[in-house]
Amino acid sequence: MQQEKRAVLLLSGGIDSTTTLALIRSQGYLCYALSVFYGQRNQHELHCARYQAKTHGVVEHRVLEVNIAGWGGSALTDKRQTVPQHTSDHIPNTYVPARNTIFLSLALSWAEVIGAYDLFFGANQIDFSNYPDCRPAFIQAFAKAANLGTREGIEGRPFRIQAPLLEMTKKEIIQLGQNLGVDYATTISCYQPDQLGLACRQCDACWFRRKGFVEAGIEDITRYQSKEKVDIPRHC
Amino acid sequence: MQQEKRAVLLLSGGIDSTTTLALIRSQGYLCYALSVFYGQRNQHELHCARYQAKTHGVVEHRVLEVNIAGWGGSALTDKRQTVPQHTSDHIPNTYVPARNTIFLSLALSWAEVIGAYDLFFGANQIDFSNYPDCRPAFIQAFAKAANLGTREGIEGRPFRIQAPLLEMTKKEIIQLGQNLGVDYATTISCYQPDQLGLACRQCDACWFRRKGFVEAGIEDITRYQSKEKVDIPRHC
Repeated sequence: MQQEKRAVLLLSGGIDSTTTLALIRSQGYLCYALSVFYGQRNQHELHCARYQAKTHGVVEHRVLEVNIAGWGGSALTDKRQTVPQHTSDHIPNTYVPARNTIFLSLALSWAEVIGAYDLFFGANQIDFSNYPDCRPAFIQAFAKAANLGTREGIEGRPFRIQAPLLEMTKKEIIQLGQNLGVDYATTISCYQPDQLGLACRQCDACWFRRKGFVEAGIEDITRYQSKEKVDIPRHC
Repeated sequence: MQQEKRAVLLLSGGIDSTTTLALIRSQGYLCYALSVFYGQRNQHELHCARYQAKTHGVVEHRVLEVNIAGWGGSALTDKRQTVPQHTSDHIPNTYVPARNTIFLSLALSWAEVIGAYDLFFGANQIDFSNYPDCRPAFIQAFAKAANLGTREGIEGRPFRIQAPLLEMTKKEIIQLGQNLGVDYATTISCYQPDQLGLACRQCDACWFRRKGFVEAGIEDITRYQSKEKVDIPRHC
């Protein structure tokens, strides 16, 4: 009998983490999904995360509250800061200080408790906003710390921090997800959707998402804030 | 004019973190103290942390709620597990999975926002319970990840993860604290105090604490659960 493969996945409800979810489910992982409500502007993403977790049959989905927004420091958590339009600036103000370090730490803790040794997240360093905590060097360094700072890491099996989309373009990610049956209409990427969850079309996240659909030659089914008639999204 | 030195300190309200607080205040650091309510049995420690933060004049004290207890995995967060009496077992069940990785990540995030480059915590590897996340190798690895996963770390000044008590015995820590004016009566170490905050005298934390006072030749003013008449602690 094949050994059970458990994984903890950081699930935001966007394209990358949802595609990662579909990918690891197709690889036979039993998936424990972790989403974090950290005070982000886009709280629609938590609805999408819940929907995707259910759709892809995770064993358990937890939404943990951690008030990172309490100290601000990012346009995503501090409404006094403006979310910029897409720019090629090196690190935009949508960077959230130490976000992935915090999220991976939480995933690590849960993983150690349930006996999961693979921690997955949707980090990508091709079509991304130059966030330092999406780069291979950080991921490797975090893995080392994780394996020195946990009981399992020093006495049992090592943890692996896995970002299978790291070197893929958004086009490739969307094509992969489509082949895996991901319904991208029920994902959300925008940093500042309106109250209905409609995307702004202007921010970095919208820009990379739209670029991905265009380059993949797939209709962009994202619901944007526009003068076009739009239905209220059912799932998100 | 000397440059302002800001530090974020993880403050639990026990001997080690309180002594670290007194030490860095004596060194001129402006201190931002972070305590975490993670579902620990000993919630009296948060009262002690608040008291010590105030006593030692921190700039700001935050108590952040992160429900690590939700997934259990430790006698400190899961009441179905028994807190053991002191033992020299390698890693007892009071180990909380990835606790310091989580706590340091949170401290790192706050530090980046406020422009603090020194992160202090009271880790000690002499009189301790063999927790992997109190060892120098982990601390060094975490520092590397912190400096690769943050904007400041890769573009600005590096963060330093400092554990000044790391190589000290509990005796030396208590002597240091006494010289710095720490009131240890308003600290708490016990893993399972009663409702009044009185210590069990049995657990690892009580054992190391008591050993420290005895070896330092200082009266142990800890309030234990016993038949002796005890006053209800005023501050904790």
